[in-house]
Amino acid sequence: MTSSTAAQRAADPAEGLALVKPAVKAQPAYTLDAPVARRKLNQNEAPHDLPEHLKQEVMARALAQPWHRYPEFVPKALVAKLAARFGQDPESVLVGNGSNELIQAALTVLLEPGDVVVAPSPTFSLYRLITSVAGGRYMPVSFGQRFAYDEDLLLETAQRENAKAVVVCTPNNPTGSAASRGFVRRLLDETDAMIVVDEAYQEYGGPTALPLVHQSSRVLVLRTFSKALGLAGLRCGAAFVAPAMAREIAKAKLPYNVNHVTLAAAEVVLDNGDLVDAAVAETIAVRDRFTAALQQVKGFEPIPSCANFVLVRCKAVTPKQVYKAMLEQHGILLRDVSGAAELHDCLRVSIGTAEDMDAVLAGFQGLVR
Amino acid sequence: MTSSTAAQRAADPAEGLALVKPAVKAQPAYTLDAPVARRKLNQNEAPHDLPEHLKQEVMARALAQPWHRYPEFVPKALVAKLAARFGQDPESVLVGNGSNELIQAALTVLLEPGDVVVAPSPTFSLYRLITSVAGGRYMPVSFGQRFAYDEDLLLETAQRENAKAVVVCTPNNPTGSAASRGFVRRLLDETDAMIVVDEAYQEYGGPTALPLVHQSSRVLVLRTFSKALGLAGLRCGAAFVAPAMAREIAKAKLPYNVNHVTLAAAEVVLDNGDLVDAAVAETIAVRDRFTAALQQVKGFEPIPSCANFVLVRCKAVTPKQVYKAMLEQHGILLRDVSGAAELHDCLRVSIGTAEDMDAVLAGFQGLVR
Repeated sequence: MTSSTAAQRAADPAEGLALVKPAVKAQPAYTLDAPVARRKLNQNEAPHDLPEHLKQEVMARALAQPWHRYPEFVPKALVAKLAARFGQDPESVLVGNGSNELIQAALTVLLEPGDVVVAPSPTFSLYRLITSVAGGRYMPVSFGQRFAYDEDLLLETAQRENAKAVVVCTPNNPTGSAASRGFVRRLLDETDAMIVVDEAYQEYGGPTALPLVHQSSRVLVLRTFSKALGLAGLRCGAAFVAPAMAREIAKAKLPYNVNHVTLAAAEVVLDNGDLVDAAVAETIAVRDRFTAALQQVKGFEPIPSCANFVLVRCKAVTPKQVYKAMLEQHGILLRDVSGAAELHDCLRVSIGTAEDMDAVLAGFQGLVR
Repeated sequence: MTSSTAAQRAADPAEGLALVKPAVKAQPAYTLDAPVARRKLNQNEAPHDLPEHLKQEVMARALAQPWHRYPEFVPKALVAKLAARFGQDPESVLVGNGSNELIQAALTVLLEPGDVVVAPSPTFSLYRLITSVAGGRYMPVSFGQRFAYDEDLLLETAQRENAKAVVVCTPNNPTGSAASRGFVRRLLDETDAMIVVDEAYQEYGGPTALPLVHQSSRVLVLRTFSKALGLAGLRCGAAFVAPAMAREIAKAKLPYNVNHVTLAAAEVVLDNGDLVDAAVAETIAVRDRFTAALQQVKGFEPIPSCANFVLVRCKAVTPKQVYKAMLEQHGILLRDVSGAAELHDCLRVSIGTAEDMDAVLAGFQGLVR
């Protein structure tokens, strides 16, 4: 090969792209444009940081660790605490760098090219991206009236498509809808699929599928430290699944994925469950007051939510206009979700402090006055 | 469906396993059984922790962050420091929760079922696991005499198999072999594959392919904070690749994957490059003295290494016996790599402090006296 050919090759930026799977190239990237704002209500984070004395406790534990040494292969202490809190065997517990990593690992070990994943629509956007990257076929099923779970349609679709996995995000992001208590059991009984139950927001409402982990190796329940447990900035998630499945999913989960500091923080939070419970109770109360108050504001319709956010229909002003006005005039950052067809008239509002929500209400009222 | 059928289903642990891809089930899990020992020379970690005052600085920065808030979508400050240190554009930098995550993301966006990945053998075991989980076909190519890179054979294999990706781990783990200066350029010129250059140990020896990132969109260079940069316990890695490819690979890399504390630690380490350089120089000197001294010990043959570990052939006593005696009699934990066919008579010894290596030499001498 001559050096001029080499130079031509080197100059061609499309050459690498030709090697990328078409299914990946077809996917839009997951991005978030998040300007800095005084009131941050766009990512469903807990409204309060961990108290200073607990952050100090985490730091003291982290300082005592050797940072140049890998974390434990299996973080036994955290696994034991998670097993105790969620009523599971330690062998059923997987810990990840956020629950996203565990969603990815689970779908990666399951999906052959063309395998179908059925999920409600709209839901957390990573499911579609991860399914597509893994070569699967993503099949969204619309919610019913006012974004209630259409359980019959989800079940029928899973059966008709012979789904490899069914995603049940409950309460669902961004609608706040919870599936009914018996729905996961029904999916287990009437399909052969793996049922991936994402309970990232379960502390705020709706039933849990955790007891089913003891009953079937086809149910995976995901939990996160990023919402009620207040550690979005430290990245920790957990999955609960029958031990034999946990061992398979672990093959797609990279080793040493949770670091010393995150392990210490997660343990400290689990040791202070009363604080978490109090914060969750506060958020539920603030959410319910906000929803009731917003029902009185002409031009806005809150969708009743079981989570720490509320989907809001904008009837008088477009969501984009509301988003812009709230950010620029009031320093309030909301989430514009109107890009999805079903949500063309919607915004998502995370539940912050009572003061945050009063500011949102005042801002909304100002827009339709 | 009757409830007895439901009960039967629930009782069957194999039911979930039936949904797992055969290629995944066929893979052994990546595990590490690592007993606690006084001298830990089994994971190629840096021998010294970050100095206490720098750990305190990281903690102070981390305490000032809101732990309940997600990290930045793109960690701009760290990306800028990495771009400066490694001579790249910021758009070419990907940051991951360890470089393992970036290897996984890169292979995931490239590999369609059956696509071939060519790699030297033996090498870092995650390449085989990740390739198999992604549905690819892994094609190992043996090293030549005394574990030198057989570059002609690697190239010919990549050409013959029309490889989608070629892995060049240089210096290679666990052999310590470095590829020659022109080898990556030659692979770029004479194949159409993506060249994944894992430079986890490059600070300790051998050439770097970093300048090629500017010249071809088919080269990906991986670096880690877990070895020379001394942060194995905090999980951080980086990849350098043409911007258009970086955007595609980012689709398989989960958002918010590096947490507040790790970002602070990585920045502090990059701000103190002189400490890193001094630690690397010390390790190289200790390695070279250890290798020279071991050449004088009958029954052991060190393979010359460009990394912070040395592969050792055991000629008088089996590797398993050496491993056991060193652990039980001397409190020294080595890595028994003799499970791989090419390494049936080998152990891997990480380079620790000068005192650690004197203890290893004394232990080895005692075994063959």
